[in-house]
Amino acid sequence: MSETSTATRTIVVEREIAHPPEKIWRALTQPHLISEWLMKNNFSPVVGHRFILRGEWGGVLDCEVLIVEPQRTLSYTWIFKHDDPLFNLNSVVTFSLSRTTTGTILRMEQSGFRPDQKQAYGGAKAGWPMFLAKLEQLVAETD
Amino acid sequence: MSETSTATRTIVVEREIAHPPEKIWRALTQPHLISEWLMKNNFSPVVGHRFILRGEWGGVLDCEVLIVEPQRTLSYTWIFKHDDPLFNLNSVVTFSLSRTTTGTILRMEQSGFRPDQKQAYGGAKAGWPMFLAKLEQLVAETD
Repeated sequence: MSETSTATRTIVVEREIAHPPEKIWRALTQPHLISEWLMKNNFSPVVGHRFILRGEWGGVLDCEVLIVEPQRTLSYTWIFKHDDPLFNLNSVVTFSLSRTTTGTILRMEQSGFRPDQKQAYGGAKAGWPMFLAKLEQLVAETD
Repeated sequence: MSETSTATRTIVVEREIAHPPEKIWRALTQPHLISEWLMKNNFSPVVGHRFILRGEWGGVLDCEVLIVEPQRTLSYTWIFKHDDPLFNLNSVVTFSLSRTTTGTILRMEQSGFRPDQKQAYGGAKAGWPMFLAKLEQLVAETD
């Protein structure tokens, strides 16, 4: 069936944060802030920029910036290469910011999980709420 | 210089824990406990067993059990494959437990960082104290 080869799953996590989009945008795009809530990195908010997210376990994710619309949308690839196709992850992460009367709704969407990648999908589903909680804490602590 | 090709760096982290080696050994070797302080895994305390440590970021480490001496020594490979040799990590993690009058000294040694792998080395140096703090917390919480 040709459909199965292209069907992928997507994770969406939304979080309402009592701070304006400008502040959240900084946390999403400044390397020293990204390293506080996500991972060490050499990010730069420039379409086409390739960067890595580097964890304390000794591994890295390979990424490339796809969309930069200040205060609104940030998207990059989130790629993990592995010989075992179960773990070989070719995904895209997109952050969308919507201003509200009291702050911002931050929406994170990660797409590209194949149906058989249940572990990667489950891990990301558990991980993103934690990452975004740390982001909110960071934003609350910084001016 | 032939020396440089084999010279590698090692990280050692020690932590004194007010619980007996038996309890710490369980946290080091039972998959559901390992997943609480380190990462999701399919570990088994059998020499030659291959397993993965799986993170919520979508990536995995490839591991193989090298030494199992109950309550005393556990060692396994900790491998991260990457096209960039800077990130391609071929390391060995060894836990040693020494009984004291008040509990256990847990020693973690990770060897195999090449001199140019400063980022992986720095990440692990920052990460292990956190992992071991979580392990101690887990041991304190469980019977």
